Amino acid sequence: MPHPLAARIDAIEPFHVMRILERAHQLSAAGHDVIHLEVGEPDFATPQPIVDAGIRALQDGRTYYTPAAGIPALREAIAGHYWQRFGVKVDPARIIVTPGASGALLLALAALIGRDDEVLLTDPGYPCNRHFVALLEGRAVNIPVGPQTAYQLDETLLTRHWTPRSQAALVASPSNPTGTLLPNPAIARLNTAIRLRGGRLIVDEIYQGLVYDAPNETALAVSDELFVVNSFSKYFQMTGWRLGWLVVPTDYIPAIEKLAQNLFLSPPTVAQYAALAAFSADTHAIIEARRQILASRRDLLVAGLRRLGFSIPLMPEGAFYVWANCAALGDGEALAERLLEHAHVAITPGLDFCLHQPGDYVRFAYTTDADRIEEALLRVAKLIDARP
Amino acid sequence: MPHPLAARIDAIEPFHVMRILERAHQLSAAGHDVIHLEVGEPDFATPQPIVDAGIRALQDGRTYYTPAAGIPALREAIAGHYWQRFGVKVDPARIIVTPGASGALLLALAALIGRDDEVLLTDPGYPCNRHFVALLEGRAVNIPVGPQTAYQLDETLLTRHWTPRSQAALVASPSNPTGTLLPNPAIARLNTAIRLRGGRLIVDEIYQGLVYDAPNETALAVSDELFVVNSFSKYFQMTGWRLGWLVVPTDYIPAIEKLAQNLFLSPPTVAQYAALAAFSADTHAIIEARRQILASRRDLLVAGLRRLGFSIPLMPEGAFYVWANCAALGDGEALAERLLEHAHVAITPGLDFCLHQPGDYVRFAYTTDADRIEEALLRVAKLIDARP
Ligand SMILES: Cc1ncc(COP(=O)(O)O)c(C=O)c1O
Ligand SMILES: Cc1ncc(COP(=O)(O)O)c(C=O)c1O
Repeated sequence: MPHPLAARIDAIEPFHVMRILERAHQLSAAGHDVIHLEVGEPDFATPQPIVDAGIRALQDGRTYYTPAAGIPALREAIAGHYWQRFGVKVDPARIIVTPGASGALLLALAALIGRDDEVLLTDPGYPCNRHFVALLEGRAVNIPVGPQTAYQLDETLLTRHWTPRSQAALVASPSNPTGTLLPNPAIARLNTAIRLRGGRLIVDEIYQGLVYDAPNETALAVSDELFVVNSFSKYFQMTGWRLGWLVVPTDYIPAIEKLAQNLFLSPPTVAQYAALAAFSADTHAIIEARRQILASRRDLLVAGLRRLGFSIPLMPEGAFYVWANCAALGDGEALAERLLEHAHVAITPGLDFCLHQPGDYVRFAYTTDADRIEEALLRVAKLIDARP
Repeated sequence: MPHPLAARIDAIEPFHVMRILERAHQLSAAGHDVIHLEVGEPDFATPQPIVDAGIRALQDGRTYYTPAAGIPALREAIAGHYWQRFGVKVDPARIIVTPGASGALLLALAALIGRDDEVLLTDPGYPCNRHFVALLEGRAVNIPVGPQTAYQLDETLLTRHWTPRSQAALVASPSNPTGTLLPNPAIARLNTAIRLRGGRLIVDEIYQGLVYDAPNETALAVSDELFVVNSFSKYFQMTGWRLGWLVVPTDYIPAIEKLAQNLFLSPPTVAQYAALAAFSADTHAIIEARRQILASRRDLLVAGLRRLGFSIPLMPEGAFYVWANCAALGDGEALAERLLEHAHVAITPGLDFCLHQPGDYVRFAYTTDADRIEEALLRVAKLIDARP
């Protein structure tokens, strides 16, 4: 190993799914028909009205830096979205446009978590969260959560794990990898418990809008003392544009602005102008239709996996993931490898999302067509020798 | 102040020039003709071949995530650029595409600097560097440098400031704010001294290509044990696209790749496809012509400022900045304010770039037309009651 290397590097894991992706690529190149159920981004291209706005922005010469917190028009458009969609008033000054939810998570954690400070996370959860904490020399407290709490934190877990060094808890609703929600009454209880202890709640709403049964909510309706992370990546299908936002409590605006100035200079300019078209009626119609498609894919995939012997105790209510317990079928990592090699179906081993019992889980993403999902289910059935 | 707030936030300063920019904006809105000599980005829009490639990428639906280290074609194009332009062979696997040089600096420092580890920086220098270090809970050692060393580090300074906690030194050539270079023989001496001590040298080459008298060099010709930071922002005039790159020693590829995966997911996709056109002959002709324009602006501005009583001991050889000692004319911050209020000329106070004697300096950027620079010089002359 080279010298010097910061100690944190050992604590940061690569995405294990990258090996799967690479192997899938090799198999495709060798002429095999690989079905992709591992990919954490919508298969839909960015809606045309957004792409058109991006092209116009380029034609208009929008190629310079913008203010670090984003162009005022976009901050106002996001505030307008909260008002129109959720009836929640948010001061645009509290909305900081960022390079993806990734940028928003880094800003929020950098403002809250000093060295050795703790942040409470769910396990399973989005793995980058604990790696951001390692970057900041803080401590990620990875709390095992199960179906009893819909794979979310609750006050009991919070009380059990909160220490004098805890500064924040971070939850995601809908969650990656479980697709489960934390409804607003539960957010309110969690937020109260955290505020009582002098901490702050961060809610990652990157999959907001991608909910199939429950109402679409924002934690901003609960309190203006919490941090909300969001992004144009998933619901608006703008992954490659690298654009998200962070809503911060008023007190934190100066800290977050100077962090954004120094870490990012500015969010991508073309993406910001393109995103102005994300809240239009045209775009809305497109993404709502796509949401219906995702809902039916989910139903198909969950039913199929259950028939095959995967245990999915809770219907995932949002995002585009199924977190499936595969204990009855074997170790998750070995299963993912067998599925890829012999059935040419790519999925993500649980390992990428949890430290606790990683071998018992795999994640399926329904980011491919229903007929491909059906075909994948047939192949999996054949492989594990079960009835489809 | 809100609670909790990470201690690092106190150590991170906002860009003081933002106040100048805001006031300049107010003055413009009130009908005044403000001349901008404060802006750290080229006034030229992105060259048309790059913009056209960006538009084509959008038309082709390039809106998805890419590999975290960038699309292979771009990594190869950058390697090709090193070969064609500098005769240096660089393995594309060592080239990590990032969200701007900002992203590259964060990756390099995150891999090298753990808590309480030291990194040696020049003072004056690019202020974000020490703030990245604060993010990582490391220690920035801000070494006062003057005209004797061309505002750069040398082995004497290195030897004086290196401690057992030092892991790296970071230099920029051409430098912001001084425009001075660190030629390859000097890089070689510095690198040897650092490697002898078990540390690593990081060279920020973001202003590479923007040199006016001296040869255009890369530190990669010296050693493959150092880190090189670069960007499409300045020479290629792609600031708002947020695209840069980092060249790393082979040993560090796995560490840097997993950091990039976790912190950024991927660099902006449209920007990557657009940047493929950055190395074309068409683009080259455009940016070389612009470089000539910058050279003559520099000559005009430096001569004018010297006549007005600013002390500029070294002709800045690159970038688009003049670091002017204003001690004979008064405090730099007060001067910047007076110039803006009474002459409507916006410049950046030294405060933004140094901790040592900030009041003695101001930075002028020649990112505006020659006739505007002449007009600015006349206004400054009138204000300070000197002969232009
Ligand atoms: C829960 C969660 N948060 C944040 C992100 C970061 O996404 P982006 O930076 O593209 O907005 C992801 C991406 O998969 C995610 O699943
Ligand atoms: C010396 C130096 N390094 C890095 C950067 C970051 O630039 P970017 O992130 O746009 O590539 C700048 C921007 O002004 C700079 O002056």
